[in-house]
Amino acid sequence: MSYTKLEKTFYRLSQLSQASSFLGWDQQVMMPAKGNDSRGQALAELSVIATEIIQSPELEDAFAAAEEEVDLEPWQKINLSKMREKWLKANAVPKALVEAQAIASNQCEYAWRSLRKQNNWKDFEPQLTEIFNLSREHAQALVTGLEKEKTYQNEYEALLDLYDPGTKLTRVDDVFDALKQVIPELLHQVLERQRLQPKPTRQSHSIDKDRQVALSKHIMSLLGFDFDAGRLDEAAHPFSGGSSDDSRITTRYSPDNVLEGLMGIIHETGHARYESGLPKAWRNRPIGQSMGMGVHESQSLFFEMQVGRSEHFIQAISPKLQQYLGHDPAFETDNLLTLYRQVTPGLIRVNADEVTYPLHVILRYEIERDIILGRMKVIDIPERWNEAMLSYLGLDTRGNFTDGPMQDIHWPSGAIGYFASYTLGALTAAQLFSSLKKDVTDVDGLIGKLEFTPIFNWLEKNIWHNASSLNYDELMTQVTGETLNTKYFIDHLKNRYL
Amino acid sequence: MSYTKLEKTFYRLSQLSQASSFLGWDQQVMMPAKGNDSRGQALAELSVIATEIIQSPELEDAFAAAEEEVDLEPWQKINLSKMREKWLKANAVPKALVEAQAIASNQCEYAWRSLRKQNNWKDFEPQLTEIFNLSREHAQALVTGLEKEKTYQNEYEALLDLYDPGTKLTRVDDVFDALKQVIPELLHQVLERQRLQPKPTRQSHSIDKDRQVALSKHIMSLLGFDFDAGRLDEAAHPFSGGSSDDSRITTRYSPDNVLEGLMGIIHETGHARYESGLPKAWRNRPIGQSMGMGVHESQSLFFEMQVGRSEHFIQAISPKLQQYLGHDPAFETDNLLTLYRQVTPGLIRVNADEVTYPLHVILRYEIERDIILGRMKVIDIPERWNEAMLSYLGLDTRGNFTDGPMQDIHWPSGAIGYFASYTLGALTAAQLFSSLKKDVTDVDGLIGKLEFTPIFNWLEKNIWHNASSLNYDELMTQVTGETLNTKYFIDHLKNRYL
Repeated sequence: MSYTKLEKTFYRLSQLSQASSFLGWDQQVMMPAKGNDSRGQALAELSVIATEIIQSPELEDAFAAAEEEVDLEPWQKINLSKMREKWLKANAVPKALVEAQAIASNQCEYAWRSLRKQNNWKDFEPQLTEIFNLSREHAQALVTGLEKEKTYQNEYEALLDLYDPGTKLTRVDDVFDALKQVIPELLHQVLERQRLQPKPTRQSHSIDKDRQVALSKHIMSLLGFDFDAGRLDEAAHPFSGGSSDDSRITTRYSPDNVLEGLMGIIHETGHARYESGLPKAWRNRPIGQSMGMGVHESQSLFFEMQVGRSEHFIQAISPKLQQYLGHDPAFETDNLLTLYRQVTPGLIRVNADEVTYPLHVILRYEIERDIILGRMKVIDIPERWNEAMLSYLGLDTRGNFTDGPMQDIHWPSGAIGYFASYTLGALTAAQLFSSLKKDVTDVDGLIGKLEFTPIFNWLEKNIWHNASSLNYDELMTQVTGETLNTKYFIDHLKNRYL
Repeated sequence: MSYTKLEKTFYRLSQLSQASSFLGWDQQVMMPAKGNDSRGQALAELSVIATEIIQSPELEDAFAAAEEEVDLEPWQKINLSKMREKWLKANAVPKALVEAQAIASNQCEYAWRSLRKQNNWKDFEPQLTEIFNLSREHAQALVTGLEKEKTYQNEYEALLDLYDPGTKLTRVDDVFDALKQVIPELLHQVLERQRLQPKPTRQSHSIDKDRQVALSKHIMSLLGFDFDAGRLDEAAHPFSGGSSDDSRITTRYSPDNVLEGLMGIIHETGHARYESGLPKAWRNRPIGQSMGMGVHESQSLFFEMQVGRSEHFIQAISPKLQQYLGHDPAFETDNLLTLYRQVTPGLIRVNADEVTYPLHVILRYEIERDIILGRMKVIDIPERWNEAMLSYLGLDTRGNFTDGPMQDIHWPSGAIGYFASYTLGALTAAQLFSSLKKDVTDVDGLIGKLEFTPIFNWLEKNIWHNASSLNYDELMTQVTGETLNTKYFIDHLKNRYL
């Protein structure tokens, strides 16, 4: 009965999380400005309620008793261990530290919004130092609190584990080192080749929002998005949220640059399909949740990079663009291919192409790892940033904090350990796509005909339906026959860009 | 400190209620169909959490200790008694009964949706009997549970008290008897007079939604609605919700009948202004909430009936209708006046005019009162309904259950004791408007110039700002010099319709 009691507790936590998710969506998409304070209070109270539930002293006995139950199904045993891990993580960190982190990140993120605009690193630096200090304390608490359950190699691995459960630091170090060996030289070759090619043509006429919405919804539908189980709306800072039965995708419509938003929508559709493909039988249970951020990102990048920017897909949607948006030389297949595969070393991560993106990630990963492990200080970030940008991308960033170490919301908001998942997702997507091609006949042809059902069935069976029942290495081995291997991503880049 | 502890508890309940309010709004306005099951689960879980909080055994000691605290401000003492009343009501009713009511009303409401369409009273009757039986049990539990705090005259008064705290059954009986003495004869005279007048002209051209939205927002703004603290959206069944800082009004747009929806929007704006006018210092506390449903309805009817359908208002908005919607003979002042003051005895309460509406309410009030007090049975409703409709409105309803006793959602959803508040609200609105005219110079002139600030200031000071710090009789005596008196409403009807 203790297992059942624990399931009820986590069911309640799941409902609180779902409530917060939709209130957060509303806050970004619907809420008028003056509602913000009381919305913040409501969300904070739901969060405190959830914390009190998972820190309830009676759970210790419930877990002890549940471990003794002999009649649990195999999936229930996995679910029990997932619940236990969440419980340990939530209880490892002292309440005072959680509160201090909430306050510090709230303040730092708020300050960051104006300091970034002012290029004011000097006033930002002490606040960011506090964020990193608290994050290190948090990591130390996790290392100590979970020492019987998990052997973290060090504090930074404990942070990676928050976003991508089971990720090993050595694995990430090895993978990122391999990319650093290859990508700068590859980038050089790509840029050389690109120099000889025609420049892409930009869209020549303004396109009203209604047409963009219609096209976006059409493409989402082609990609299996069910508008009876989700919505597409506008937000100043696009994100995707909602729940498995009710995906909420957001975007921004620019009348003069339709093409940029379109790939964003395809990306978010990948996230949404993953969530909605999770098995119904495991709803509201930790085993039934999506895996870490890396696998989540692998699904969005599978949709965007492996499918959406593929030659066959672009050929197939070019006529649809012309049909929905009107004729424009920019929407011809050849131009779309050029435009969607343009490689440009730049200062800003979120604008980066597929080739340079990993270098932006590795730079951040190395810096945050080294700060958490005490190898460098926050005050040294700009110098280190500049060295890396120069070495990886040949760009001088001295004095430009706005488009340098102050460009991302992650650090001021306290999300240390998150960045790696973007590139782990890109690598995973490439490896999965390679396996898909072995398992399913004529994937390119299917994409060209916009017949995605066999592809989505493969993803559902191999990824979505497993939810969190496997760990990452098990998943990759089961689906691709090996653990993560940079080869597939590198091959993908070479095939597409050289 | 116990008082402070209780405030924290009720703060939490208020936040849960706010979360549910916005999730409910989203469910009606934004949510795709397939999200309904999981939304229902999330809302149910929030409700269970709130129930567990208010039924927590430790609250008994906290209340006992708080009553002993000597340094409470006067407003805190009132707030304490409001908290105590909510707590007593929530704990008086056994959990099993609350659950049985939730299940029964859920089933009955679900069945009602199809049975109503089929005019199937026979299958509806046993389910409704169960609803009334449970409601009587609920009322009995309240009478017993609150006997030391409140002397309910009988079970039905306990139900009225759920929606309109402090309402006395004899008061409602007296008031409704007075209306029954006057309105049927008045109605006869109004219809006689109306027969000699021109018929109203209906709108002659279709009007697209964008124009209707623009007009609606303009009129809401004139009425002080702040779009930085609220929204106007569409819903299949219009309602208003949200919170004090974030009012969510909904409406339906019909291209061929713009005028009907417009008064609905003015009505909902009244509800929203009341909520947003509640004092900030008392937010999230029972003392700071709006008073019962009767006072709430008085504010919406003040906006709709006292202001919105007044001659000066209609004169002033006629040019705005022409400006926003295009010229149409239907939008001329004389026609608007005729149309907005058309009196037509009809079968359906929600379509009823100001003169006949109270009779619809009294009919329902008498039936539910008599069932709860054991004077009649649910099976006798159709006969009683027909007799009353014949006697009050001269309409034969035999065999027509769809547009008879099955027309409202209130009974199948378990809201017994609610109907009275509609008419108490109408009477209150008329009495308040009469006092406004004594306190503020040239109210008609202000309305004619669409200069509402003195009127809203009066409402804010006299009604909104008091929140729940007074009881209903205190409020009415303080503002109008006497308790509720039907004279003002009757005079209002005579002035407007004879």
